[in-house]
Amino acid sequence: MPELRKDPVLGRWIIIAEQRGKRPTDFIVEETTTSGGFCPLCPGNERTTPPEVLAYGRNGDQGSDMPGWQVRVVPNKYPALVIEGELDKQADGLYDKMNGIGAHEVVIEHPDHQVVFSALPPEEMVLVFRAYRDRIIDLERDSRFRYVLVFKNYGRAAGASLEHSHSQLVALPILPRKIDSELHGAISYFNYKERCVYCDIVRQEMRQGLRVVCENDDFLVITPFAPRTPFEMWILPKKHSSAYHQQSDQQLKLLTGVFSECLRRLDACIPGVPYNFVLHTQPLRSQPLEHYHWHFEIVPKLTSIAGFEWGSGFYINPMSPEEAATFLREAL
Amino acid sequence: MPELRKDPVLGRWIIIAEQRGKRPTDFIVEETTTSGGFCPLCPGNERTTPPEVLAYGRNGDQGSDMPGWQVRVVPNKYPALVIEGELDKQADGLYDKMNGIGAHEVVIEHPDHQVVFSALPPEEMVLVFRAYRDRIIDLERDSRFRYVLVFKNYGRAAGASLEHSHSQLVALPILPRKIDSELHGAISYFNYKERCVYCDIVRQEMRQGLRVVCENDDFLVITPFAPRTPFEMWILPKKHSSAYHQQSDQQLKLLTGVFSECLRRLDACIPGVPYNFVLHTQPLRSQPLEHYHWHFEIVPKLTSIAGFEWGSGFYINPMSPEEAATFLREAL
Repeated sequence: MPELRKDPVLGRWIIIAEQRGKRPTDFIVEETTTSGGFCPLCPGNERTTPPEVLAYGRNGDQGSDMPGWQVRVVPNKYPALVIEGELDKQADGLYDKMNGIGAHEVVIEHPDHQVVFSALPPEEMVLVFRAYRDRIIDLERDSRFRYVLVFKNYGRAAGASLEHSHSQLVALPILPRKIDSELHGAISYFNYKERCVYCDIVRQEMRQGLRVVCENDDFLVITPFAPRTPFEMWILPKKHSSAYHQQSDQQLKLLTGVFSECLRRLDACIPGVPYNFVLHTQPLRSQPLEHYHWHFEIVPKLTSIAGFEWGSGFYINPMSPEEAATFLREAL
Repeated sequence: MPELRKDPVLGRWIIIAEQRGKRPTDFIVEETTTSGGFCPLCPGNERTTPPEVLAYGRNGDQGSDMPGWQVRVVPNKYPALVIEGELDKQADGLYDKMNGIGAHEVVIEHPDHQVVFSALPPEEMVLVFRAYRDRIIDLERDSRFRYVLVFKNYGRAAGASLEHSHSQLVALPILPRKIDSELHGAISYFNYKERCVYCDIVRQEMRQGLRVVCENDDFLVITPFAPRTPFEMWILPKKHSSAYHQQSDQQLKLLTGVFSECLRRLDACIPGVPYNFVLHTQPLRSQPLEHYHWHFEIVPKLTSIAGFEWGSGFYINPMSPEEAATFLREAL
């Protein structure tokens, strides 16, 4: 059983998901794998994954776990957390821990093994954003979970272990530290100003224009004022909303428009750059929050920069967001 | 002039140190460099670095910036922060920024280009820990600075850009977010328990023995209860102390004993593994703190694990610290 453990000073929870029998040297740097060989995410191999929890695109007379889907969500075969069991919160002296209960799912973004997410046509990409929404709505009904972390690792350097285009959902019984810190920061701003800090960011960025990458009626893409890396981007709804999973199909279509555009701009600046994106949204079963604002953060993985920052939490960024936004606007 | 910028939600400061004229593709993943070629850190090349700010090991009649040293500290030739100027704190709408004033120094750990830090004999390694202390004492006199971040990147994957064994000091006009979070967590524990949380950790770890890697009379090395990666280690003084720079030569000798031992144990488990270590100590010009406890954190860089954790602040660790401690104890 995996275990959730809390750092007694920082309050940060981590998952211990032991891969028993591994030796220390099994954790050393892996080489990039090349394509070829069996892919469990490809159509025709549906029976090699755990049974699907969602699929879009099949017509009525095609059964589940069969080809014909456009987007398919399955439990992770090697989950970091397990779905069955009780949390069993415990103390061990001054330490806190609980069983590693949670859901860990894989969103297979397209049937074609070769396709790259950023190159998906918007009418296909939108299904991925609908899958995130619909899985959050479903997982919210499990009262053991407090948050669903949605993220994508693109490229081996960003942590992707399978080539077939996919993203992941992890339903957690705790709040990830970063989200918790954001909620704290946002509420202290709200208590002082009686305004949402992200709404103020949207207004200032639209007025200044210095860090705007692209936009449409409902969404804004910026390089944030204090970015960790060159080309970090945030995608924010222009109108206040704290819950991603309350977006309509029409809003997700508009989200897809700017998401697709900014990834293509990033790829035009640095072809094939690995990146992570993470959805930031309100905790499960929360009332709508006046002080929080859902958004995506896209962080390119530029290993010439990542280094001690990872250990110290302190970032040195060799490119201003104003310059990065200029490059991104001029790409394409 | 580099710039310090604050994230308006998280309160995290980052440095924008622009390398003008760089193109986006200049930030893509670099290949590991091999040895050979000119090394500005080698003896005989002292005139190619900025003038030294500290050197140990020369005898009386050898001049500064000449060979004969054992450990030498010089300003970074390509500093992330600059030493000359005023902070000039400013608002830009809802954002906060200031000039990138600070010191950025390189600690050259040994004259021999080929030497590896973990293989240094303790009587030579101790000079490195004395250099950290003596530079902090000197930098504390500059009232613009609030913190000195001391860290080492070993191996290209951990961010080292020069092969010659070295570590770095960055004097900052702000507190790094991680240290700030630790101070907050530690004081809230103290307010509740009236004890230092790190002292409680030391007591519990010594009693349980499960996560102890090695120890001597004054220092304890553990794998922490909630580690980010396999083989993460913390080195703590057993007796309460919040300020690294108040350690005597004798205490630094004892520190060196366990530091050297645990790095050799790590290297025996995963030969040549890249790592970062970071000194965590109290802010500059602070009174001794009852609630805080200086320590070092050593984080191996295992890229098969690092991935989205970096973007989300959420860690999945495939090895328990109890198992890692067993491997480390049995090594050597």
